[in-house]
Parts: sequence; C-alpha cells; structure tokens
Amino acid sequence: MARILPKSVTKLIEALRVLPGVGERSAERYAYSLLKGQPRNAKLLAGALADLHDSIGYCKKTFAIIGSDDELSELYTDPRRDKTLVMVVAEPFDILAIESTKSYTGTYHVLGGLLSPIDGVGPESLKIAELKERIVDDKVVEVILATNASVEGESTAMLVQSTLEGVDVKLTRLAQGLPIGVDLEYADQLTLSRALEGRREF
Amino acid sequence: MARILPKSVTKLIEALRVLPGVGERSAERYAYSLLKGQPRNAKLLAGALADLHDSIGYCKKTFAIIGSDDELSELYTDPRRDKTLVMVVAEPFDILAIESTKSYTGTYHVLGGLLSPIDGVGPESLKIAELKERIVDDKVVEVILATNASVEGESTAMLVQSTLEGVDVKLTRLAQGLPIGVDLEYADQLTLSRALEGRREF
Repeated sequence: MARILPKSVTKLIEALRVLPGVGERSAERYAYSLLKGQPRNAKLLAGALADLHDSIGYCKKTFAIIGSDDELSELYTDPRRDKTLVMVVAEPFDILAIESTKSYTGTYHVLGGLLSPIDGVGPESLKIAELKERIVDDKVVEVILATNASVEGESTAMLVQSTLEGVDVKLTRLAQGLPIGVDLEYADQLTLSRALEGRREF
Repeated sequence: MARILPKSVTKLIEALRVLPGVGERSAERYAYSLLKGQPRNAKLLAGALADLHDSIGYCKKTFAIIGSDDELSELYTDPRRDKTLVMVVAEPFDILAIESTKSYTGTYHVLGGLLSPIDGVGPESLKIAELKERIVDDKVVEVILATNASVEGESTAMLVQSTLEGVDVKLTRLAQGLPIGVDLEYADQLTLSRALEGRREF
C-alpha cells in the first residue's frame, strides 16, 4: 500500500495517542496542528518532554511533585503554611485544584493513589504510614481528608481513619453536597442524599 | 508565592497548550498522565516532535506531506493510482479521510487551505495555478472538488471552477446531503435543502 503520511508524522500520531482520551482522530488533529504551526512550538514541547522524568522528584514529607534538585516542596517549607494542618489528597495534581481556591494555607500529604483492589492498589502502596509519622513529628492538629466523593475515595478515607485510630488528631472530610451553579434536577441521587444529610442551619 | 509545581512541569503544561482545543485543565491532565506514565512514552513523543518539521516536505505535484528525502508522494507515483483523476482537497490531512474509505484510486491535489479573506487567505496563496498546469501535463480527465460544504469550501470550489474555465476537463463536486446514520430531525436546514436538490432516482 502506498504510504499516505511520511513515517515521522505517523510516529508522532502514534506517540500522541498515549495522552488520556486521545484517539486516532484527535492525535491526527494534534499532529496536523503541530505540523502547520511554528517549528518552535513543536521544539518547545519536545524539549519539555525530553527531560520530564529526570527533572522531577517527590517531596520527602508531602510526596508532592518537586524539582529533582529540591528535597522538600515549597508548599511545606514556606513558613506561611500551617504545618499543623494537613490536607490528604490522592494525587499530586489535586494540590493544583485546592491551591486554585486560594483559601487554604495548611500543608498537603499526597497518598499516591486511591485504594482500588481491581487495579492492584492496596493499603501498602499508599503513603499512610508516612502520614502517621508526620502527624507526630509536626504536631499536626487537624487532618482534612480530601479524597474524591467516589467509592475508592470513601474507602481510602476510611482506611486513613482506621489507621489513625488512637492518634490524637482531629479528622475532617471535605463537605459533600450540591455543586455551585448546578440545578437540583441535574444533581444525582447520591449527591442529593449527601446534601440532605449534611444540611446546615441557615 | 510558593511554587506548586516544578518549573519543568509548568513548562510542559504551557507547551501542551499549543494543541488545538487544549486549555489549562486538559494540558494539566495530559502533563500528569505523561508524568505518571512510563518515561519511555514521554521520550518517544519528544523524539517524534524534535525533528518533525525537518523530517517532512511537500510533494512537488500534489502538495501532500511527504518525507524530506522524497520528492513525490507515493499516492502520486504509485502506478495503480489513476493520474487522470484528481481530487482537490484543502489540507494534506483531508487525504487521510478519503483514503480511509478505500474507495478512491485517483490522485490528489492539496490547495493548502480555503479562501478566507478574513484570515488573509486569498486566491494567490492556494495552489490553483499548479493544478491547472497539472491538468495539462497529466492529461487529467476529471477533477473532483472535495472542499468542505462550508462557505469557504464553496467559494474555493467556485474559484477553482472559474480558474479552470476553458480548460477541457470534467469538474465534479462531492455529493452533499444527509450524513449516514443521522435522523432527519437532526439534520440542519441547509443540509436538508441540499439533500432535496440532489435527490436521485430510487
């Protein structure tokens, strides 16, 4: 069969398909856009990808992503962050979402995933022992469980809770209820039950 | 402000935003997936991007994308392709869509865009003179206009038509009508009018 695209472009399309949710058509569209765009943009992206894994590391305390030259996350070392308040999240990028609210000044603890027996993620693959240690070392007063409102998120939260049993620390969980700007009629049943359970005095 | 992500990751997120339709959230999601994935995948993508523009060229006859070492597209040089039948498309990647039908055995001619005065694309930026030349050189019998069924696609088709006035060649246009598998009630007005105009004996 005649070659429709040069090998270099076919290779790029294949390589782009590792991105989440990117199928053949999207990969083609991306490849064509990169091809049509300035060579500089493709080279910038190439450069950013080439050393990606060598350039990063994980904070020894919070397990947030940091530069490979650093040892601790600035979100931990910054003296303005309250080390006695720790928000427990599943993945490093969850920190971005919380930071974007600009209303949290505590520190983080990245578990490195959520309990998921099907995917082979058991209690031992999560950084829960490290959390326990940190609670003692940093005299943590409150731990906010900020895992998803999903089955995995809930069971992970419960695992953290049972592991911390007997440890003198306040455990809280992010509120569950109606998302802002969504009509009642579009909220699912579970969200509505949670919103009802967690109703507050007006 | 404390740095939330290492510079290398921020740079990657920025670089990913050159992809069409990729905003901040998608770029973050892509970056995180690349970070979590095998370093090999990121390096493959980096490699495919680094030499992208140096590795390609354009076919001197059809203006399809080819390897920089080639001179002509295999879709042109392949003896099984009928050189007297030429399909005129706007962009090189349009060829992929037509080839995927496996029901076309002619050759292609890539115009390099569609007429769009707002975007500064005038008649002189399209490869229409080259098409005219080719019709003579290759004794072309039929030219199929396969530009989009959009205002730009229509006006480009009309421009090609007027440029080829007096040239002894059959000009055809891809049929417009109902897309397969779409209910009548979801078809837009213009598509329906075209389907009515172009109705065929059953």
